[in-house]
Amino acid sequence: MHPNDPSLRSFLAIDPASDFPIQNLPYGVFSTVGTQPRVGVAIGACVLDLALLETEGLIDLEGATDVFAQPSINAFMALGPELWTTTRARISQLLRHDHPELRDNAGLRQRALLPLADVTLHLPLQVTGFTDFYSSKEHASNVGVMFRGKDNALQPNWLHMPIGYNGRASTVVVSGTDVHRPRGQLKPPDAAAPTFGPCKRLDFELEMGVVVGQPSAMGGMLTEAEAEAMIFGFVLLNDWSARDIQQWEYVPLGPFLAKAFATSISPWIVTREALEPFRLHGPAQEPLPLPHLQQQGANNYDLRLDVDLRAPGASKPAALCSTNFKYMYWSSVQQLMHHASSGCAMSVGDLLGSGTISGPERDQRGSLLEISWNGAEPFDLPGGGQRTFLDDGDTLTIRGWCQGDGYRVGFGAVAGTIIPPR
Amino acid sequence: MHPNDPSLRSFLAIDPASDFPIQNLPYGVFSTVGTQPRVGVAIGACVLDLALLETEGLIDLEGATDVFAQPSINAFMALGPELWTTTRARISQLLRHDHPELRDNAGLRQRALLPLADVTLHLPLQVTGFTDFYSSKEHASNVGVMFRGKDNALQPNWLHMPIGYNGRASTVVVSGTDVHRPRGQLKPPDAAAPTFGPCKRLDFELEMGVVVGQPSAMGGMLTEAEAEAMIFGFVLLNDWSARDIQQWEYVPLGPFLAKAFATSISPWIVTREALEPFRLHGPAQEPLPLPHLQQQGANNYDLRLDVDLRAPGASKPAALCSTNFKYMYWSSVQQLMHHASSGCAMSVGDLLGSGTISGPERDQRGSLLEISWNGAEPFDLPGGGQRTFLDDGDTLTIRGWCQGDGYRVGFGAVAGTIIPPR
Repeated sequence: MHPNDPSLRSFLAIDPASDFPIQNLPYGVFSTVGTQPRVGVAIGACVLDLALLETEGLIDLEGATDVFAQPSINAFMALGPELWTTTRARISQLLRHDHPELRDNAGLRQRALLPLADVTLHLPLQVTGFTDFYSSKEHASNVGVMFRGKDNALQPNWLHMPIGYNGRASTVVVSGTDVHRPRGQLKPPDAAAPTFGPCKRLDFELEMGVVVGQPSAMGGMLTEAEAEAMIFGFVLLNDWSARDIQQWEYVPLGPFLAKAFATSISPWIVTREALEPFRLHGPAQEPLPLPHLQQQGANNYDLRLDVDLRAPGASKPAALCSTNFKYMYWSSVQQLMHHASSGCAMSVGDLLGSGTISGPERDQRGSLLEISWNGAEPFDLPGGGQRTFLDDGDTLTIRGWCQGDGYRVGFGAVAGTIIPPR
Repeated sequence: MHPNDPSLRSFLAIDPASDFPIQNLPYGVFSTVGTQPRVGVAIGACVLDLALLETEGLIDLEGATDVFAQPSINAFMALGPELWTTTRARISQLLRHDHPELRDNAGLRQRALLPLADVTLHLPLQVTGFTDFYSSKEHASNVGVMFRGKDNALQPNWLHMPIGYNGRASTVVVSGTDVHRPRGQLKPPDAAAPTFGPCKRLDFELEMGVVVGQPSAMGGMLTEAEAEAMIFGFVLLNDWSARDIQQWEYVPLGPFLAKAFATSISPWIVTREALEPFRLHGPAQEPLPLPHLQQQGANNYDLRLDVDLRAPGASKPAALCSTNFKYMYWSSVQQLMHHASSGCAMSVGDLLGSGTISGPERDQRGSLLEISWNGAEPFDLPGGGQRTFLDDGDTLTIRGWCQGDGYRVGFGAVAGTIIPPR
């Protein structure tokens, strides 16, 4: 049976509301007290230790060794899409209710299946490059209306290419990492000169991240099929943004320090293969993109995304946004085709942020900049108080999942708490 | 004697015009036919094989092993500034005319000193991040006058911080690597829609690159002394630029594909220590930078930079530019202090481009954009013909050196030839 078959069951009892049924099998990097970080797969409330299974000879990687006993998924990604497929099928088999190999080996099961509650999750990939796009038409339009008015909301180039910029790879961190409020140069429009101090308009951006698992040649270009085959999987991504720092620094070379202090991702990489059942076509593109950016495939995903904010001491979080990855105007495949089109070599471990994912409705806005309309419309917290941007102590959480019939393929969460400057 | 002492001599005969006297000792990565890339030091017309010296026990790295038998300098850089100093002193000692250890060991000398003509030079560092600044006031002013007129030449933020953007690390290549002319979306101002095709306005940018050899903490900031101590050395850097692609893509998120196809660097990293005798104060900064960017030290360098262009079949190259690194308004130390100031973690292997280095005179312009004044003023080639931007087959070469009394501390060259799109 195909690992995506909805009728598959594991010998482990798995809550139908779990993000990690046997149809998912996302990869992450974990450790337990006193052990080294290594690669595992989430299944129900457990992590399956792939390094152990590799050592025990239960997973065959065609001659490659020590692939999962690494602190990142990169070595496995470098093996290529065929091994991604066969390995996922093998892991699925090992976890099936009707397959005895692991099920009936109590000793191995105890060593290989560790409760999620007992492990520490680490950054799942070594990020070799981080690129951030700006591919939601709703988000770009909201920002454009706010700063340039309705008639000039989209820049002239926006409908012709997925606009993006190079971000900072060294500060991509895993969910749960506290985020120091950044400092920077601030200059309100009416001030004569800038000052240096803590950011006053700290924001999140709800994004998905594409994890690139295969390289491309310098000087080359990518077809749609080639680009798609390079995508290993997806993560939830929060592109923390200092709006006031950005406003002063970004002309003419783009966002720099306003985005460089932290980018948080989910600990689990959901594979492209696991998302197959949830593919759909994105919005119609008008004008038709130039030939090298045209796509035939259904490269968007029906992927629900929820954001909430928990204020310090609050008994429950405030729902901020509930939207869907399907709204994206430019698909991840198009972003990758564009990225390589000038001859830019792509690498194993490239992380491509989708850009803020907003939707057509007001409650589908994926940033506080949009939600509070640049601070003009504060929102009320359920326990009292208001917010326009993030306060110290606030915890921002993004969750995402694809809903199947009786199961969901989920990402878990990416969460981060704002703490004062170091 | 200090390794920078001008009276030092090597037992090797070294041309006074050589870039690599015993006072220099720049690091690179080399291989010979059938051997693996490893770290060496240039001395006169030879490379000194440090991997061999390490294996033979002639260089002591305080317990670290296999440091130089690596295809990059990163492992050595990670050991820190104290070992950078003691190792350079030890290499200097081994090469001195009055020190017998290597001089009198003919067998070792033959194995450890390889003619430069017989080796292949590789990218000397693993570039973990590439940031490009825009820190020459003359360059920024030239570009500003060209596109916005004399009264608005500098953007309002330019005098307050070293403006920069994240570049693409995966396409940093070593001198001698051919550069495919990039393709991209082009839209002349009078065209109704963009087209996709080869860049028509391909340029170089004369820059220096700082090689960061030590990490800094996420959330932290850097003092002037801390920033300086993190700088391992410098390389020549050519930031190839597609002006027409940039013009259409760069608003609002900055240069992306126009700079992503290739960045060339010299094979030799000249250490900060070797440049000590050539330090001087840069231009006065008015207004005074904010406190976190102020510097007391003489952080600029008296470093001559020459650029020439050899057209296909030309008997001699055309001199394009002769300028000096000393003109830079923002120093490398200030760039690093700024970079970390928002909490951005710096990494071993970060490469920081200075930005195009122009000078106050017309023949000191460090890009064809400025030399041809955006194409309006073609220049004549010595063998006939003209150029505004680069043609296929053109070879662009940057050379740089500091002139001492009777010796020079040089970088060799960074050269690249433009070839048609793949």
